[in-house]
Amino acid sequence: MLEDKNPQRTSLAELGEFGLINHITKYFSISHKSTLKGVGDDAAVLDASTKQTVISTDLLIEGVHFDLSYMPLKHLGYKAVMVNLSDIYAMNATAEQITVSLAVSNRFPLEAIEELYAGIQLACETYHIDLIGGDTTSSTKGMLLSITAIGKANKEDLVFRDGAKPTDLIVVTGDFGAAYLGLQVLEREKQVFKVNPQNQPDLENYTYLIERQLKPEARKDIADLLKELDVKPTSMIDVSDGISSELFHICTQSKVGCKIYEDKLPLDPQVINACEEFELDSTTIALSGGEDYELLFTVPIDAYDKIKGNPNLSIIGHITEQNQGLQLITRGGQEIELRAQGWNALKES
Amino acid sequence: MLEDKNPQRTSLAELGEFGLINHITKYFSISHKSTLKGVGDDAAVLDASTKQTVISTDLLIEGVHFDLSYMPLKHLGYKAVMVNLSDIYAMNATAEQITVSLAVSNRFPLEAIEELYAGIQLACETYHIDLIGGDTTSSTKGMLLSITAIGKANKEDLVFRDGAKPTDLIVVTGDFGAAYLGLQVLEREKQVFKVNPQNQPDLENYTYLIERQLKPEARKDIADLLKELDVKPTSMIDVSDGISSELFHICTQSKVGCKIYEDKLPLDPQVINACEEFELDSTTIALSGGEDYELLFTVPIDAYDKIKGNPNLSIIGHITEQNQGLQLITRGGQEIELRAQGWNALKES
Repeated sequence: MLEDKNPQRTSLAELGEFGLINHITKYFSISHKSTLKGVGDDAAVLDASTKQTVISTDLLIEGVHFDLSYMPLKHLGYKAVMVNLSDIYAMNATAEQITVSLAVSNRFPLEAIEELYAGIQLACETYHIDLIGGDTTSSTKGMLLSITAIGKANKEDLVFRDGAKPTDLIVVTGDFGAAYLGLQVLEREKQVFKVNPQNQPDLENYTYLIERQLKPEARKDIADLLKELDVKPTSMIDVSDGISSELFHICTQSKVGCKIYEDKLPLDPQVINACEEFELDSTTIALSGGEDYELLFTVPIDAYDKIKGNPNLSIIGHITEQNQGLQLITRGGQEIELRAQGWNALKES
Repeated sequence: MLEDKNPQRTSLAELGEFGLINHITKYFSISHKSTLKGVGDDAAVLDASTKQTVISTDLLIEGVHFDLSYMPLKHLGYKAVMVNLSDIYAMNATAEQITVSLAVSNRFPLEAIEELYAGIQLACETYHIDLIGGDTTSSTKGMLLSITAIGKANKEDLVFRDGAKPTDLIVVTGDFGAAYLGLQVLEREKQVFKVNPQNQPDLENYTYLIERQLKPEARKDIADLLKELDVKPTSMIDVSDGISSELFHICTQSKVGCKIYEDKLPLDPQVINACEEFELDSTTIALSGGEDYELLFTVPIDAYDKIKGNPNLSIIGHITEQNQGLQLITRGGQEIELRAQGWNALKES
């Protein structure tokens, strides 16, 4: 389906580790004053400031987190950066630097690595991020990527997971379930392709779903929006494993319960249509689909007027006392206990 | 040889990702004032200070960087931290925090992960390091570890790779080649074990070599020693790939050449004996063995009196003009061009 048609193959062994590092880093430039020393020494050096440093890290493994038969390498590079930036934005911080460690088996030629780094570079340019270091090595099987993102925030701006209070409103950005359904569409096309490689897929009805799966964007804009609205969240988390799983984290760490409303969950029309087609429950997909990389946060109830009607934000419920548990109120008015049935990486193997 | 005799096996899938994270992090405590928020949110938060932040990252993959048939998991955890701290110390900085990302296939039970983290914890306690985050996931094959280390330094104390000047002395800490030979001994024992599992290995003559391979120590002490001696290096690097490879980095980045002397290379008697036994050239092993995790640095020639005779330090040569190249002067007085024949991870696959 999505195959590398480029016949040119440069062996990585030929180039060597240092050659490869030089080759892939020469296209990256430094844009933050705080990046004093990037790639090329034992460690990178960041300038001190009166702000606080925020650090997050993620590991992506071929066959577990991505499938290169439908994930083009450039998209993988872009997405891998987004996954990490999303964590930094979920602290209400500004992301400034990343380190990228890469392991590849000898089935990958240089041209594949170039594609991957083209995606990383595009993400760095778009999100104003400096690549400051990493490690490059061989793997015995497949590709894996480990990215660490570093950000900055004023101490008073940082938002953690443990500050939600009863009566706080629960707010989400964007919409949910599309990335998960995008994956289902791509998986289906992969099966069709196996049976008939000549088949031309018609993906017109799934463009948004596929884009959300292959090229997610991290919500860099929300910190600014919240400042404009003069709202400071009491807690915040990025939605990588589905709303249920993230609410579970917020409620556990804040020692509270919550009530969310099925009819308030923001869904794109393509999500609703695809759920019908795949015979899936759209609420389950929105709550447990994962990979949306939207933000979920709580705000004091008196911020209601500032939040409501904003096209970027949806109020989906409110925080309750801890003994009330985590509840979903269905369209029919029924109370159902939420379960953290987020995507569990350790159960995939 | 070194096998887990513990019959207890707790499946990781049973525990789930969040259960596993809670389980392995509860034994770690925070010891730095600068660690404001460690594990448990989207990102860790470090306090601002007037110092500069130093960041380094390394990726270790089973079958490429380690072999669990003779590397006990606790040692692996310890060593993985050392590899990263060594990079921070090579900046003349103090290491303060690490993030640890781990991927494991389902062949590993919880008890194996506990062993690994016991080693990481021992390293953290011994070296005064806070574990502040990470990622835990499944792999399709084997184990891999990605560690990022974060340190602090005053701007004026930082030492890079690009400051070496002609006539500067080249100084190394400790001795060389032992870790490489330790690996050869362990590899040989593994082969013996395959043929006769009842064989009891006699490793008495190789204790230092094996310790250097399985439980290396990073040179945390050198920054303090240099302060005591009132010496500031003009350049510094940690020796992970062998002296030749590191000199190649220093000379390339500093735009200089160098001359080192075969008879000045510090070798432990066990290294000399094992080289005879394995019919290896001890100079080659010292120059290209790798995994010593000692420091190599350059100092102005007027620091000679402060360095000479110090039991931790050996002067092995001096920096020259770039057009002189990188030269080894043999015991017989012959000049041989050095080659960066360090361990190349990308050629292993």
